Amino acid sequence: MPETISVGRYLFERLHQAPIGLNSIFGVPGDFNLTLLDKIDEVDGLQWRGNANELNAAYAADGYSRIKSAMGDGSGGLAALVTTFGVGELSALNGVAGAYAEHVGLVHIVGIPSIASQQKQLLLHHTLGNGNFDVFRHMSAHITQTTGILHDESQATAEIDRCIREAYVNQRPTYLAFPTNMVDVQIPIESLDKPLDLSLPKNDEGSEAEVIERVLDMISNAKDPVILVDACAARHDCTREAKQLIELTKFKFALTPMAKGSRHIHEDDDRFVGTYVGTLSYPQTKEAVESSDLVLSLGAMLSDFNTGSFSYSYQTSNVVEFHSDYTKIKKAQYPNVRMKEVLNKILKSSQLKEAIKNYKPAEIKKDPFPKEDVEPASKLTQHYLWSALSTWLRDGDTIITETGTSSFGIIQTKFPRNAVGISQVLWGSIGYSVGAACGAVMAAEEFDPKNRVILFVGDGSLQLTVQELSSMIRYKNKPYIFILNNSGYTIEKLIHGETAEYNNIQPWKHQKLLETFGGEDIENVRINTIKDLNNIFSSPEFAKNDKIRVIELMLDVMDSPENLVQQAELSAKTNSG
Amino acid sequence: MPETISVGRYLFERLHQAPIGLNSIFGVPGDFNLTLLDKIDEVDGLQWRGNANELNAAYAADGYSRIKSAMGDGSGGLAALVTTFGVGELSALNGVAGAYAEHVGLVHIVGIPSIASQQKQLLLHHTLGNGNFDVFRHMSAHITQTTGILHDESQATAEIDRCIREAYVNQRPTYLAFPTNMVDVQIPIESLDKPLDLSLPKNDEGSEAEVIERVLDMISNAKDPVILVDACAARHDCTREAKQLIELTKFKFALTPMAKGSRHIHEDDDRFVGTYVGTLSYPQTKEAVESSDLVLSLGAMLSDFNTGSFSYSYQTSNVVEFHSDYTKIKKAQYPNVRMKEVLNKILKSSQLKEAIKNYKPAEIKKDPFPKEDVEPASKLTQHYLWSALSTWLRDGDTIITETGTSSFGIIQTKFPRNAVGISQVLWGSIGYSVGAACGAVMAAEEFDPKNRVILFVGDGSLQLTVQELSSMIRYKNKPYIFILNNSGYTIEKLIHGETAEYNNIQPWKHQKLLETFGGEDIENVRINTIKDLNNIFSSPEFAKNDKIRVIELMLDVMDSPENLVQQAELSAKTNSG
Repeated sequence: MPETISVGRYLFERLHQAPIGLNSIFGVPGDFNLTLLDKIDEVDGLQWRGNANELNAAYAADGYSRIKSAMGDGSGGLAALVTTFGVGELSALNGVAGAYAEHVGLVHIVGIPSIASQQKQLLLHHTLGNGNFDVFRHMSAHITQTTGILHDESQATAEIDRCIREAYVNQRPTYLAFPTNMVDVQIPIESLDKPLDLSLPKNDEGSEAEVIERVLDMISNAKDPVILVDACAARHDCTREAKQLIELTKFKFALTPMAKGSRHIHEDDDRFVGTYVGTLSYPQTKEAVESSDLVLSLGAMLSDFNTGSFSYSYQTSNVVEFHSDYTKIKKAQYPNVRMKEVLNKILKSSQLKEAIKNYKPAEIKKDPFPKEDVEPASKLTQHYLWSALSTWLRDGDTIITETGTSSFGIIQTKFPRNAVGISQVLWGSIGYSVGAACGAVMAAEEFDPKNRVILFVGDGSLQLTVQELSSMIRYKNKPYIFILNNSGYTIEKLIHGETAEYNNIQPWKHQKLLETFGGEDIENVRINTIKDLNNIFSSPEFAKNDKIRVIELMLDVMDSPENLVQQAELSAKTNSG
Repeated sequence: MPETISVGRYLFERLHQAPIGLNSIFGVPGDFNLTLLDKIDEVDGLQWRGNANELNAAYAADGYSRIKSAMGDGSGGLAALVTTFGVGELSALNGVAGAYAEHVGLVHIVGIPSIASQQKQLLLHHTLGNGNFDVFRHMSAHITQTTGILHDESQATAEIDRCIREAYVNQRPTYLAFPTNMVDVQIPIESLDKPLDLSLPKNDEGSEAEVIERVLDMISNAKDPVILVDACAARHDCTREAKQLIELTKFKFALTPMAKGSRHIHEDDDRFVGTYVGTLSYPQTKEAVESSDLVLSLGAMLSDFNTGSFSYSYQTSNVVEFHSDYTKIKKAQYPNVRMKEVLNKILKSSQLKEAIKNYKPAEIKKDPFPKEDVEPASKLTQHYLWSALSTWLRDGDTIITETGTSSFGIIQTKFPRNAVGISQVLWGSIGYSVGAACGAVMAAEEFDPKNRVILFVGDGSLQLTVQELSSMIRYKNKPYIFILNNSGYTIEKLIHGETAEYNNIQPWKHQKLLETFGGEDIENVRINTIKDLNNIFSSPEFAKNDKIRVIELMLDVMDSPENLVQQAELSAKTNSG
């Protein structure tokens, strides 16, 4: 008798196997996925990480995937969440859509009723009552790379592999419907031996050759090129190529807000000119980027908040955009010339050296790092916070910032080497950061329990997803949770309705949250003044991530990073336009 | 100069005007809806009720709508929630789908980017980054009666009226996309003078005549008919017709679980035979319903949990189903013969008296109400709880039960007159009850602050939506929140995985929740024994809803209502089938 395994176990073995290598599966149990969840235990080294609700589970999977991508061995990231039919999966959609928008690889596995129940069109709970069992998959199709369903044994392993592959290769979510009757269907154990094919499609040769020729030509004719590293460079595993390009050419380079905290790209590099956000950049960064006569853009996501409301104003039209699935030179698009392969070919091209032989790197004028003397007894400000944070962060920290004052303020902070930045700048769903922190801290601590995960979230955003603090307590994670207490939705007050009731929230006792959620080894701190902040940032005990901590930062309602004030004005204009 | 109002204000005036009569609008602010929210304040008597997140807002709107329907002047219910483009609206989908499945009228208003931004395909935040601004509306189309978008001034009022009307008439959610540039467009104030047309479509005359003739004929040939009142009777405003039918004919009648707590239908009525749940019914109820030779079913929702897993076993095939949009006699379907109109015609028909002239009402044998002597010091059980609750409830109470042990246990409880029952038996999204309670308590207290709203939720379900306790504190509502603390997802443990880790949760300190969320005038009680429960149920102070209360019921992990144990076995069978 040949040895067999269940299709349910096959799925989780595949997700745990190298090169995917998941150790945690997120989600919420529901009666159509319970028997499937049993199979997680059968996989050595794989853990179920139950979240408090499905939206948070999707955010957690997103955070986990980003860390796998950033800290891994060079492969892209992936994560998986399991929800139940209808009620569970729909609650996760906003989180899945965020992963789609921001290029995060994850597999959304949904336990659905048995094929027999579906064929009988039973009026089961968790249905719309209309006998249509396919409607939720159709909804997910809008926000996923692909959807799959396990109809029968003959296609089960191929369909599972396809959903994992598509998520990984495209760094987008995929959707896999798993009927209850398929969980225990037996298949040969040898099915696991064939490695998952995770290779990227090959570039179109003719197009690629033309791209390489044109790019090298533009490089050789340029006097002062700049490399702009954006989010998809990290998401699609091209930061080593970016680093090599910087080192080989000595071109100056900038990061975008979404790329801040990308692996291999260090802010202390001599050639780093700063974070480029169009008109919201520091003046010397803006000048350094926009005065260039060639822009090599890697993995651009040209969204409003990533570009200072579309305020890029290059003085040149010599712009090359390398994307995960196409390349653009000036106005010409080259489909199927993928960034990773073409960059590697350019880097290996003997003509690159030739092309840069006359290039003379100019000295980089760095913006003076904002530093000022402030009265220690004076009230904490965002301005002080984000600069002072630079002194406390250390090599390898993960810094997660919520959409709001945090995601704008963090641009002021100088990141240490190997820092990982997580922020949902394009999708911008408030509350995301708390769920993402839950997934990120699990991934980071899987790599090394000493890895610190540091969350900055406003009191308003926290309210959307607060219960995920409980999951971090449950799994004994040790994140730092900085809560910016500014009495409501400050980012919205800046855009519109400064005194409107709808921008206020119910005030909470943040110092009691960890205890209420059953936390035992916990620390709560409240920071009122500059001195309070300096105290924790200089404390060796506080620097050790040996417990879960809430640090409540008491801030004035309208205190905001300067770049957010400007962005809010631009946003208000777009909204009314 | 003619007086004008903005399109934004027009929307909210319409929702506040009689006969809709909303006083509260739910939702979460976001930058694409802020200027729209300003218009709420311009409507006298209309209040913004900010929720902690969008899923909870949808649940709250659902609860509000159900109360408006149940306590109103006979019109159906409606509620409205406002979310923001992309991130906000997707978070609400599970709640909106629940309203669709369970026939609850609500309007989901989504603030979206200006038409100009859309035409330029700007890569705005809250988009998928692909320039497609219509994708989210397409997703909502699967779970709403209709979707609308305000493209231009000329169709704005008609489109708003259409979305309100469709939600109301069909008792389903509708979706209305409101671009930022339309908010302040001015229209003549006289637009408000034309009343909303909320009349039902007229029945098809020929079909209706045939239905009436056949039904009267079946009645005159029946010896022992039964009337089965189900959820859609209440949702589609037919409980007065149901009551009249019962009173006129003296036929015995039963309620389904989803209809328990329907207006005008009283459990102390002589002709009431109990709650019918197929094989899970009390024996005398089962016998009374199934032995009938004619079943008149009003507003049936024949879902698994509402029918004891499809275990109806009538001895007759003489079944008439009256639905909101069709009628079914035996196997024949009559589209466009709507319940309300046809019932009224039957009630007014001179032949009805003739048809029942030989009918002799048999005496109803009532199941003895379970009562037993228990040791006051013994541990609280679900069995005791649900029976004892009958003694504490009073006229007009709203009782909300979460999907789980509560929604099954409540079937044991005898409801007082005019009680309103809320439970999401078909859709069954856990966490629903907490959000629904928030909306229900606002609606109930708008009618009369003395109206009591009583929530029963398990510790597992509570974790999904706990932050809505904060909204009830914020708006100074006075609900009773009974938390069944049984250390995890007991309903799932019954179905599968009794000892599985995935069915456990992080233990919380429930006694600290209200305080942590900033509650001041609060009461926390923990109930361990029968005596503890008897004490609160006999206390006149406790009976007054003068503050928000958490009552934590300490229960054994696997302690469950007997009917749930049976249902769980049936569900496990269906799932594996």
